[in-house]
Amino acid sequence: MNSFPSRITVLAGGIGGARFLMGLLAHLRHTNPDGQGGTATVVTVIGNTGDDIWVHGVRVCPDLDTVMYTLGDGISKERGWGREGETFSAKDELAAYGVEPTWFGLGDKDLATHLIRTQSLASGFTLTEVTAALCDRWQPGVTLLPMSNERAETHVIVDDPDQGRIAIHFQEWWIRHRAALPAHGFVMVGIEDAKPAPGVLEAIHDTDLVIFPPSNPVVSIGAILQVPGIAEAVRTTKAPVIALSPIVGGAPVRGMADACLAALNIETTAAAVALHYGARSSGGFIDAWLIDTQDSESLGILEESGIRAKAIPLMMTDVDATALMAAQTLDFA
Amino acid sequence: MNSFPSRITVLAGGIGGARFLMGLLAHLRHTNPDGQGGTATVVTVIGNTGDDIWVHGVRVCPDLDTVMYTLGDGISKERGWGREGETFSAKDELAAYGVEPTWFGLGDKDLATHLIRTQSLASGFTLTEVTAALCDRWQPGVTLLPMSNERAETHVIVDDPDQGRIAIHFQEWWIRHRAALPAHGFVMVGIEDAKPAPGVLEAIHDTDLVIFPPSNPVVSIGAILQVPGIAEAVRTTKAPVIALSPIVGGAPVRGMADACLAALNIETTAAAVALHYGARSSGGFIDAWLIDTQDSESLGILEESGIRAKAIPLMMTDVDATALMAAQTLDFA
Repeated sequence: MNSFPSRITVLAGGIGGARFLMGLLAHLRHTNPDGQGGTATVVTVIGNTGDDIWVHGVRVCPDLDTVMYTLGDGISKERGWGREGETFSAKDELAAYGVEPTWFGLGDKDLATHLIRTQSLASGFTLTEVTAALCDRWQPGVTLLPMSNERAETHVIVDDPDQGRIAIHFQEWWIRHRAALPAHGFVMVGIEDAKPAPGVLEAIHDTDLVIFPPSNPVVSIGAILQVPGIAEAVRTTKAPVIALSPIVGGAPVRGMADACLAALNIETTAAAVALHYGARSSGGFIDAWLIDTQDSESLGILEESGIRAKAIPLMMTDVDATALMAAQTLDFA
Repeated sequence: MNSFPSRITVLAGGIGGARFLMGLLAHLRHTNPDGQGGTATVVTVIGNTGDDIWVHGVRVCPDLDTVMYTLGDGISKERGWGREGETFSAKDELAAYGVEPTWFGLGDKDLATHLIRTQSLASGFTLTEVTAALCDRWQPGVTLLPMSNERAETHVIVDDPDQGRIAIHFQEWWIRHRAALPAHGFVMVGIEDAKPAPGVLEAIHDTDLVIFPPSNPVVSIGAILQVPGIAEAVRTTKAPVIALSPIVGGAPVRGMADACLAALNIETTAAAVALHYGARSSGGFIDAWLIDTQDSESLGILEESGIRAKAIPLMMTDVDATALMAAQTLDFA
């Protein structure tokens, strides 16, 4: 009898989520193959679109693309975002024209994706449909769904030396300011009118397991949970919800999650993030929490809060290590 | 006393027009300098936008850009169109996605121009305004005006093996079919609603000299003359109108003008093109016509038709040769 879940749903941000998915798929292909090079387990990914940005007239979906390119073997392995062998001619030319923003890393290969997306959206296709069409080429081995087809982009409340307290686009804060401007909070512009994209609520309700990979708990997973209806679905699904800590030894494994947590007055520790998510048994979002072995002193606190917890190695150093991590995630669930 | 015209207006297509303008400006800079590296003669170029195309969601103006890049020292000298040191990553990626058209040479550097143009047009700026903004960077040394701010794109009537007689976009015929599909005619979709762009009629009326450079007489100069009001302005301006033959020794100097002329049952000879334009004294468009020395046997026919004609070397082998040609054009005018 097959002991593998037949359906897994993963809420994912960019690099961290994508790398976890690489390991998960590698593990499933080896242990639960479909006989055609894929996995017998159907994996659905709900991707964060709170990072999306219109730039130079094209729609960029950084997290969806990072998942798609990573799983489709098109990602720059060195950078973790954008395309392997990328060139930046168009970006340099836009800067030569003096057109802002100059800080956004718009690659030439990547531009093709954005041009297709922009033209398709302008033709009336939804982001769900466009994403599926783009995935026809990349064959990521998962069903990749945007969290919403409505525009709801994360903005960051910061103090500008000239203008006082203002909201700037997340990408401007993240890339231009490298998250170094203290954030006083985050606001998703348009979120009140956003609906979960088709298939999203079903993927959370009709599944055997929901996973929060080690993505940014505030601006990735947190953004997805802000789409009206998604938080309630996660709270009420019959499937267990298991999460992996993006914080190891008091620091983000990658990215600048600490700057995001600070804005919400959450400590940069594995335990604090778990308590931020909260136990489903107490109205929170997660049933179980995986922390790194070096954070095992917090296991007790977590269990007291109603969250099952276990310490395993959480460093995604390569696909094999990540596959092992995914295997332990499924075991623990 | 200054014997140079203080204002010259040139109707231009792409490569041929741009190269002639290089020579004209070189000649004027040497012989009629403004003391600041430019020319005391104000040169206004009315650019053909009949070749324009929306492709992958961006607006491309091949002839305007060829003039702008050539005079701004950004053109690929080898190809004569597009940018020097161009890459084609986005184009290759679009093809990898299977998105048509795959035959259009959309360069990565070039894309920056198109993105700015497309976004500016979407923001409500006119093509005249956008072109001026792009020229801020390139400093072409001329005032570059689109012939019209309305969309009026040349289409070609051809016989499709499956569909019978159809109209295809000029660029599809020119690039994809290399003008090898016999053309039964040309139609500019939208021309009846097009108006001359601001400044165009004034540039034809309030000038000392109008020049038709050796551009394609059918789809470049011919397209400009089809914008309602422009033909009448050329016929009635007080300035002399002088043209240079794009046909030398019975063949186009470059491009595939012969295929365009054939569609209109015009012989590919310098004399036939001149008679197609016609003498202004008989309701046509030109007063004078420069042909290449190897075509001098047709001088008699032309003079009989009321067109002043002279034979000079018309091969634009380099800027010096072209500057000499421009000098002889001004002399003859």
